[in-house]
Amino acid sequence: MTLIKKPVTGMKDILPAEMEIRDYCISVISKTYAEFGFCRIETPCVESIENLTSKQGGDNEKLIFRILKRGEKLKLENASSEADLTDLGLRYDLTVPLVRYYSEHQSELPVPFKALQMGNVWRADRPQKGRYRQFMQCDIDIIGEPTDLAEIELILATSTTLGRLGFGGFQIRINERRILKAMAAYSGFPAERFDEAFIILDKMDKIGIEGVSKELTESGFSEDSAARYCELFRGLDAASAAAGETAGARARAEAELSYLEEKLEGVIEPDVIPNLREIMNTVEKSKKADFEVVFDATIVRGMSYYTGTIFEIAMPELGISCGGGGRYDRMVGRFTGTDVPACGFSIGFERIILILMEQGFTIPGKPEKICFLLDKNLSRERLSEAIAKAQAEREQGKQVLVVRMNKNKKFQKEQLTAQGYTEFQEFYAEALK
Amino acid sequence: MTLIKKPVTGMKDILPAEMEIRDYCISVISKTYAEFGFCRIETPCVESIENLTSKQGGDNEKLIFRILKRGEKLKLENASSEADLTDLGLRYDLTVPLVRYYSEHQSELPVPFKALQMGNVWRADRPQKGRYRQFMQCDIDIIGEPTDLAEIELILATSTTLGRLGFGGFQIRINERRILKAMAAYSGFPAERFDEAFIILDKMDKIGIEGVSKELTESGFSEDSAARYCELFRGLDAASAAAGETAGARARAEAELSYLEEKLEGVIEPDVIPNLREIMNTVEKSKKADFEVVFDATIVRGMSYYTGTIFEIAMPELGISCGGGGRYDRMVGRFTGTDVPACGFSIGFERIILILMEQGFTIPGKPEKICFLLDKNLSRERLSEAIAKAQAEREQGKQVLVVRMNKNKKFQKEQLTAQGYTEFQEFYAEALK
Repeated sequence: MTLIKKPVTGMKDILPAEMEIRDYCISVISKTYAEFGFCRIETPCVESIENLTSKQGGDNEKLIFRILKRGEKLKLENASSEADLTDLGLRYDLTVPLVRYYSEHQSELPVPFKALQMGNVWRADRPQKGRYRQFMQCDIDIIGEPTDLAEIELILATSTTLGRLGFGGFQIRINERRILKAMAAYSGFPAERFDEAFIILDKMDKIGIEGVSKELTESGFSEDSAARYCELFRGLDAASAAAGETAGARARAEAELSYLEEKLEGVIEPDVIPNLREIMNTVEKSKKADFEVVFDATIVRGMSYYTGTIFEIAMPELGISCGGGGRYDRMVGRFTGTDVPACGFSIGFERIILILMEQGFTIPGKPEKICFLLDKNLSRERLSEAIAKAQAEREQGKQVLVVRMNKNKKFQKEQLTAQGYTEFQEFYAEALK
Repeated sequence: MTLIKKPVTGMKDILPAEMEIRDYCISVISKTYAEFGFCRIETPCVESIENLTSKQGGDNEKLIFRILKRGEKLKLENASSEADLTDLGLRYDLTVPLVRYYSEHQSELPVPFKALQMGNVWRADRPQKGRYRQFMQCDIDIIGEPTDLAEIELILATSTTLGRLGFGGFQIRINERRILKAMAAYSGFPAERFDEAFIILDKMDKIGIEGVSKELTESGFSEDSAARYCELFRGLDAASAAAGETAGARARAEAELSYLEEKLEGVIEPDVIPNLREIMNTVEKSKKADFEVVFDATIVRGMSYYTGTIFEIAMPELGISCGGGGRYDRMVGRFTGTDVPACGFSIGFERIILILMEQGFTIPGKPEKICFLLDKNLSRERLSEAIAKAQAEREQGKQVLVVRMNKNKKFQKEQLTAQGYTEFQEFYAEALK
């Protein structure tokens, strides 16, 4: 029987050139987040199916790879559904496992707990270009910090990391679930249908305000409410425009937040908008990368667990989002019965790698690469000499490849040059003059 | 519903202190292997069930976590066996995936291909102390190098890495599948039962030569053959003893190899023992770590895919094995139809971490850790100042944690000191004098 050479559907093998860039990014990310006091942790890739299907994960719960029960636990003849056959699954994100981890190890962890996770997750999405069924996520989370110090540090850490990876001119777009809800309440949507309205709002960048209005009424929201809702977004646009195109992101955000403060008075908790303002101000004052923080009332974020601020990284030139996060103050309580404030930010690791690969990224500060080519008639003595010499060079931190010389030495050297080897030494049966 | 706090059976959460040591080891391993010209690659954690159950993996194939088919492919009502329900599984080692990877991407890879893999594997073993169902493997492999240059470089790279991680006084024990087979043939065991005999031989360190002899005859091997077989091992011991305890590992190995050369003449291919001798000599001459290469005719290695040299790392003081590997020249042919020589060496990553943790290992060269403590009445201006100061320190490579000051500041500082913070700065509503 011949075996299957291809990786399984929707998952990919990583070739050496990409792996080098991935490793470089991982080292920059680790180092930068460590400077912000985040410590790396790891959880198993496999989680209890109960935790994975606890309605924390939104649509991702439909995409779980389930693992067959093992041994005696598997009773095929009595099984009537998938649930009878599986007790484990591959994690679809790093947030549910993090909160489980925190709940289990709380007494051994610092307060607040600042965690960095870099690990694979699995989703049985329909495979398509650039979207894989196994992909790496890179999350930072702060558990146990109730104030906006968490948001400030998360945004600064994430943007500093992106800056060190060479990204500039990007935006961190920020919103608040409580602003979203207040706007929906102000418009008269029934509270139990807020999430439905937000799913429609989320399409704003694709279908525009008219499209959102149309879809809201088609979905059975009252025309009055839909009109009132869309009026708010038109008001935001007007406030921003009045601040002036040249006024800068901070002034436009300020105009929008002031507009909402006035409109939503009595509907929203009084500290929500001032807090958001302070987060934006403090980040602007201390940022070390080339980006701006932008208020965006249309940001929704799919996960139902968010309770406060939500954010996204936008790379406008590339027209894509490169990560996001937010505050989820009530997920720990699902495990322990006691809520603990929590806030997280995830970098879209695979997208970043894709961009760097497309840009032909060169890793800075790589060590020297030397190749020793050994003639095939080399005596054992000369072979030992060559190896000993390679060992000495390696002790200096140089990368030394020792290979047999091919018949076509010129072609071999061309290939090695393409792999980054800059120096060649040849070893023959007789010592070279 | 309250969720499950514990990690799934047999898998473990990794706490920050362990994670720091793991990350450090990964960086030393990566750097050292890169100096030997190995490039890192990655394959998906999930493989086709056909590849995982192709009889390459020995007993590990009984321990596979199988993944349920998804969507339309799953026909529960017609399923009569596990095979009807699953098409994927979690990998149980990194060798089968590597060979699949090489077969698929051969044309894009250097010749010879020197690969480093560090990744998790899964085995549904009975959980016990120190043995987990998810664990990290760390493999180097050279594909496409037929000569013993592969073995020499693998042993030097692995031992140099262990040396840099602080290990000394260990042994690399080496044997040859063709010596094993020649000894079995010399003794008159039937060829189709060699593997059975080797499984018994593998118990030598536990049951001794008398135990091996007894078990061989009980398993139906002829008394004559069993006696002849055990006589060979006694002869090896005698040869080694004759060389003298103080003679050193090289002299003892030479005595044993000479004994076997004489005994197995005509039964073994003539280059096998001289090659093994040369591998040992060259490694001895060029090694950069404190270890010795020891010939050990009782080493078997469980995997049926080995075709030549086999090796194991022994830490005699700790009484455990810390890795192993060998030559498997015929596995690529299972995928492509054409054999390509291959040889690999795996470090027992989890064991190494366990040893370092138990020894209270301290990571060298860690950056300075500073903590900023913020009074809860801090104004927004002072908060911004503190954050800006933290940002400036981070740009210098320092690790700066910014946290709210607790009521019990003394206790908080004690805890932070235990986490490695050596400097504290306090920020109050009013600037400190």
